[in-house]
Amino acid sequence: AAAATEKKQKVVLVRIETSPEDVVGMHVSEGILTAQGGMTSHAAVVGRGMGKCCVVGCKQLHIDYKARKFTVEGAKTEYKEGDVISLDGFTGEVFSGPIKRVDPEFSGHFKTFMEWVDATRQIKVRANAETEFDVVNALRFGAEGIGLARTEHMFFAADRIPSMRKMILAKNEKERRAALDELLPMQQRDFEMIFRHMDGKPVTVRTIDPPLHEFLPHEPAAQEELAKEMGVSAKDIRDKVAQLYEANPMLGHRGCRLGITYPEITEMQARAILAAAVVVAKEGKKVLPEIMIPLVGHYKELTDQEAIVRRVAEEVFKQYGSRIEYLVGTMIEVPRGALTADEVARTAEFFSFGTNDLTQMTLGFSRDDYAPFIKVYLEKGIYEYDPFAVLDQTGVGQLMEMAVKKGRSTRPTLKCGICGEHGGEPKSVEFCHRIGLNYVSASPFRVPVARVAAAQAAIRNPRDTK
Amino acid sequence: AAAATEKKQKVVLVRIETSPEDVVGMHVSEGILTAQGGMTSHAAVVGRGMGKCCVVGCKQLHIDYKARKFTVEGAKTEYKEGDVISLDGFTGEVFSGPIKRVDPEFSGHFKTFMEWVDATRQIKVRANAETEFDVVNALRFGAEGIGLARTEHMFFAADRIPSMRKMILAKNEKERRAALDELLPMQQRDFEMIFRHMDGKPVTVRTIDPPLHEFLPHEPAAQEELAKEMGVSAKDIRDKVAQLYEANPMLGHRGCRLGITYPEITEMQARAILAAAVVVAKEGKKVLPEIMIPLVGHYKELTDQEAIVRRVAEEVFKQYGSRIEYLVGTMIEVPRGALTADEVARTAEFFSFGTNDLTQMTLGFSRDDYAPFIKVYLEKGIYEYDPFAVLDQTGVGQLMEMAVKKGRSTRPTLKCGICGEHGGEPKSVEFCHRIGLNYVSASPFRVPVARVAAAQAAIRNPRDTK
Repeated sequence: AAAATEKKQKVVLVRIETSPEDVVGMHVSEGILTAQGGMTSHAAVVGRGMGKCCVVGCKQLHIDYKARKFTVEGAKTEYKEGDVISLDGFTGEVFSGPIKRVDPEFSGHFKTFMEWVDATRQIKVRANAETEFDVVNALRFGAEGIGLARTEHMFFAADRIPSMRKMILAKNEKERRAALDELLPMQQRDFEMIFRHMDGKPVTVRTIDPPLHEFLPHEPAAQEELAKEMGVSAKDIRDKVAQLYEANPMLGHRGCRLGITYPEITEMQARAILAAAVVVAKEGKKVLPEIMIPLVGHYKELTDQEAIVRRVAEEVFKQYGSRIEYLVGTMIEVPRGALTADEVARTAEFFSFGTNDLTQMTLGFSRDDYAPFIKVYLEKGIYEYDPFAVLDQTGVGQLMEMAVKKGRSTRPTLKCGICGEHGGEPKSVEFCHRIGLNYVSASPFRVPVARVAAAQAAIRNPRDTK
Repeated sequence: AAAATEKKQKVVLVRIETSPEDVVGMHVSEGILTAQGGMTSHAAVVGRGMGKCCVVGCKQLHIDYKARKFTVEGAKTEYKEGDVISLDGFTGEVFSGPIKRVDPEFSGHFKTFMEWVDATRQIKVRANAETEFDVVNALRFGAEGIGLARTEHMFFAADRIPSMRKMILAKNEKERRAALDELLPMQQRDFEMIFRHMDGKPVTVRTIDPPLHEFLPHEPAAQEELAKEMGVSAKDIRDKVAQLYEANPMLGHRGCRLGITYPEITEMQARAILAAAVVVAKEGKKVLPEIMIPLVGHYKELTDQEAIVRRVAEEVFKQYGSRIEYLVGTMIEVPRGALTADEVARTAEFFSFGTNDLTQMTLGFSRDDYAPFIKVYLEKGIYEYDPFAVLDQTGVGQLMEMAVKKGRSTRPTLKCGICGEHGGEPKSVEFCHRIGLNYVSASPFRVPVARVAAAQAAIRNPRDTK
């Protein structure tokens, strides 16, 4: 895809499924088509965030990467690299050849209507964003803050991933710290960019979340190339990939588990966030950083990570001779975190419901693997909606409501929000309004829908106090 | 291992980790040593059930399957196939060369003591068993029933797995039914064996649980061999394995999701269980079958599967001209199942807490992958105990207590038990007693410990009514 774009061709990325290694290819593509996955698979989530047209889980596709072609079950035509196809992201249709398209437009009436909407709703609407493109888009679509900045997305950029990989391949803490020192100024610049754009609006930054193997290449050829670049043996890389292999990475060594086993990662990230905040505050902007620790299931995980953040904050404030206000909170995305929210809220200054993962664990549905059975489940009416598209209020929602109540029993002022994909889905937004969340956060392209849904929710379920 | 045993050699099985394909090798081994995994990984659970000495998660091992040898980090010696090592399953120590060993003995005093124990405890103790060896052992160790018979363990036997694989590779329902018809008489004979031994004692049979890819070989050589045996192309098998590949199989297409997408599997299993029960009842034995549907998170999953079981039961009773009593219930192992236990208990006549999976999903810990971080967690005191060894009462226990209360609010007589590994761990047994479970179930070798723990729990926390 990248090569094609260099030649200024428009391309549709066709993959069995996408992985973080495809992000660059996704960026330069007009649309994305995958054979596997569902509403919240990598292609769908990342594609939606980029505002790309995306059709996922098209099981009839047989893709042959080597021959650079695909066939469709039951059809005779072969589609080779260079052939033209068109996608409709609303209906999930894939068309052979080009079709006529129009760009969407925002009229003046739309603007007036959205002003009425904003005057009516009682919860805030933020966006999930971390790249400059997304942050600017988020503001354009009316976001009142960033609900989720995924720091790891920044690590995949070409200038950062070598340092990230050095960090992962480090043989000891000293080597790891040296690699993290390389990442620090780059991360800090990213956060400065976000804080400048979001002047006066809160920004929730999540510390590193995905398992480390996602940052290493899995193909032998790419491993050998990387080995050369890094001056290590291909075996070193293979061994590390094998060592990091997990049977169920979703439930593996990720989220705050990384920050707890490698405290120096949290340290570097806290330093980058807080130094950026102080720098931008000194420029006269209003910064409101909220540092969010992911995957907390036990309150002691949060106290462990919070202690690092608070210590680093004092170091940064001393170094710059200037203080700022900031919050430390957590994602509630592990069922145990919700069940023990009263304990977690002793430390957490805010909760953000990560309903993608909370749905995965509460229902026991892997979002990468549920496509084959969810189809039958929906046909048989076992679930009324795809639970990754529309929040399962009875199960996942029950945990959310419990967590809000338990959390506020400990800390009455606890700020609660949602940053899962459901934050942009109207029925789910209404539920969030009803259980007393302070805000919803969705990908920038879904912010206008979330604003309207929040207004409708407020009309149907007026709250006593704003 | 199997080859060595044919030569009447005693062997220790050394693997990076074990998988269901190793079960035969595990059976013929004196002990099992793995480089990966923890307390509830495949090797530990299956090894414990077999009463094998087992040391798992020995990360310092570097095993080279090709060269049939291993080395130990920090040591110079190589251990080749044929070299003697010894294991201590209590301490986790591995010794170079042979050590002096003694077999455990049960004295008369032990028997008397256990009679006092049984007179004191207020909850029943069952065993998890399905092979004749385990079932007989369970009775010998004082089990009062089978709490978990894992039907899929039977499918790995040499005479069954070809039919199982035919079923998986079937191109349509008709082919699938033909393969299931081959499995039916074998499953029925297995259940007859269990019911005969357990005369007068309840037997909980769980319908198929693991994802189907576990029944297919993953190594190219084994795939080609299988292709020859089955008269299909190796590509067919490779394609099926690829199609069944899951990013997170723990949260994938398994448990009742299989029975819902392929109702004919549940049909065959219900038929085998109930026909076996009728046959053995006709022999004058008392059969008490309890059919358990796994991985239920939504009550409609259970009503879907229950309808199949009840329909098949009537067909079987008509065919044999004889009826028996039986129960239909579910495992509570998905957090959503516990959260909606009041709905589930409208259909379920019993709950059995599958605390291995319930712990995995509630904490978001994959038991195959948690070894690297749980070590740090225990060192830092984040968790006091390994949550797969000792039940996490605050989190997982909270869900269990909620499920018992909600379930009995709908169905006051709801029978509740536990069949996870925690059922044999003293602290967890006490918790089960306190929240009002009717029984615990553990691997046969842990039954005596569970009986003692249940008596101690009764003394410390007397229940009003027995």
